[in-house]
Amino acid sequence: MPAMRKLMVTVQYDGTDYAGFQIQSNAKTVQGELQQALGELLGHPVKIRAASRTDAGVHALGQIVTFESSSPIPPSNLVRALDERLPVAVGVVEACEVAPEFDARRDARCKLYCYQILNRPAGSPFITRYAWYIGDRLDVKAMGQAAQVLLGRHDFSAFCASGGSATDMVRVIDRLEVCRDGDMIRMYVQGDGFLYKMVRIMVGTLVEVGQGRRASSAVAEILASRDRRQAGPTAPGCGLWLVRVTYE
Amino acid sequence: MPAMRKLMVTVQYDGTDYAGFQIQSNAKTVQGELQQALGELLGHPVKIRAASRTDAGVHALGQIVTFESSSPIPPSNLVRALDERLPVAVGVVEACEVAPEFDARRDARCKLYCYQILNRPAGSPFITRYAWYIGDRLDVKAMGQAAQVLLGRHDFSAFCASGGSATDMVRVIDRLEVCRDGDMIRMYVQGDGFLYKMVRIMVGTLVEVGQGRRASSAVAEILASRDRRQAGPTAPGCGLWLVRVTYE
Repeated sequence: MPAMRKLMVTVQYDGTDYAGFQIQSNAKTVQGELQQALGELLGHPVKIRAASRTDAGVHALGQIVTFESSSPIPPSNLVRALDERLPVAVGVVEACEVAPEFDARRDARCKLYCYQILNRPAGSPFITRYAWYIGDRLDVKAMGQAAQVLLGRHDFSAFCASGGSATDMVRVIDRLEVCRDGDMIRMYVQGDGFLYKMVRIMVGTLVEVGQGRRASSAVAEILASRDRRQAGPTAPGCGLWLVRVTYE
Repeated sequence: MPAMRKLMVTVQYDGTDYAGFQIQSNAKTVQGELQQALGELLGHPVKIRAASRTDAGVHALGQIVTFESSSPIPPSNLVRALDERLPVAVGVVEACEVAPEFDARRDARCKLYCYQILNRPAGSPFITRYAWYIGDRLDVKAMGQAAQVLLGRHDFSAFCASGGSATDMVRVIDRLEVCRDGDMIRMYVQGDGFLYKMVRIMVGTLVEVGQGRRASSAVAEILASRDRRQAGPTAPGCGLWLVRVTYE
């Protein structure tokens, strides 16, 4: 019986046409595409585990997946061979062998997300696939100021959508920046983990600050309330990017 | 009876998910989307005429369409109202009233196309929607040199796919540049008109030069042959962009 190895692959994807990462019956998912391509390539069924279960429409530049395989294929060959079997919307960045006990989700020390907002009078068919389009100019300075109270260790219940599986609502955010680059506003959020739709609810709330519909100081009250109904709407998935997952 | 006006609208679109510009039964087309949205907005059926019938997968930054309408809507209001009714993949740039005799196709003095090639060892799910991906490095200098013989007035029969409606195969190309910008190679082609798939056959031929599979001097022989079989393959539609249409 051939030896089993655990392999780790970094993948990127355009999530627009997928019903999210996690496999579903009767819906196109990134996990489904990867497992099918890997199964064909390696000659045995593959079950992958990912660092982050990104939602429908969310993109990734550095999603991490692991799986076990009895195939002797070198990781360097796996990159190109897998990439060729995947649809254009999913790409392989790199691959390596990891220890059998490595767990892509549990062992992640932090994750970096970026949320993009196209903020100018006219939209664009080429960018609105990858960014939330908001025509009226947002006050980025006010958004950045309002965001500061979210830094650190907090109970983020107010920024968690129903339907998640978490019981402990405390997370640590160690980076939170809002910056404008021409017509594009980017919000970088890094933390040790995120509740269900947490980044998108944070963005939806900060956008209301940027629109002048809420004071910057309101975010502290929302956080303290631990009540989802106090926060703003969930920003659309299209603007969200999983940039990087960091391990020890 | 309300007065009929002729309106001109500049549109942009991501052609990936369309079976081309021109309306077809049982296929999603850009013309179909525009006519449906305009019909709903203006309250009467609309038949549009476009400067260029772009093929399946081809994108546009500045496609020009015209149509007649009895609606009193000001062109400036039309831009936003139409944009809101269109799917994300189709956008409205500007609108104005034109003379009743204006014809978007016949009156075009020249058209500028850009063809994008992503040329680096690794592809990208975000770029290969908008560019032809070629992993092995192309010799851009050789491609630029080879392209020079296509400048000017020529019979371009060798660069015309079957299925077109043209009988006069002579066209004038007044700009033809091949340049590299990091990992992206862009070929700009401007002319008074183009035969069916002409730009893409030119690109497919020049790529063979860039791969070292043909000498730069071969392009003159292909042009002189007037024989489509002498030229290279038709480059994929995803890399082609209609940039601008110029009128007198």
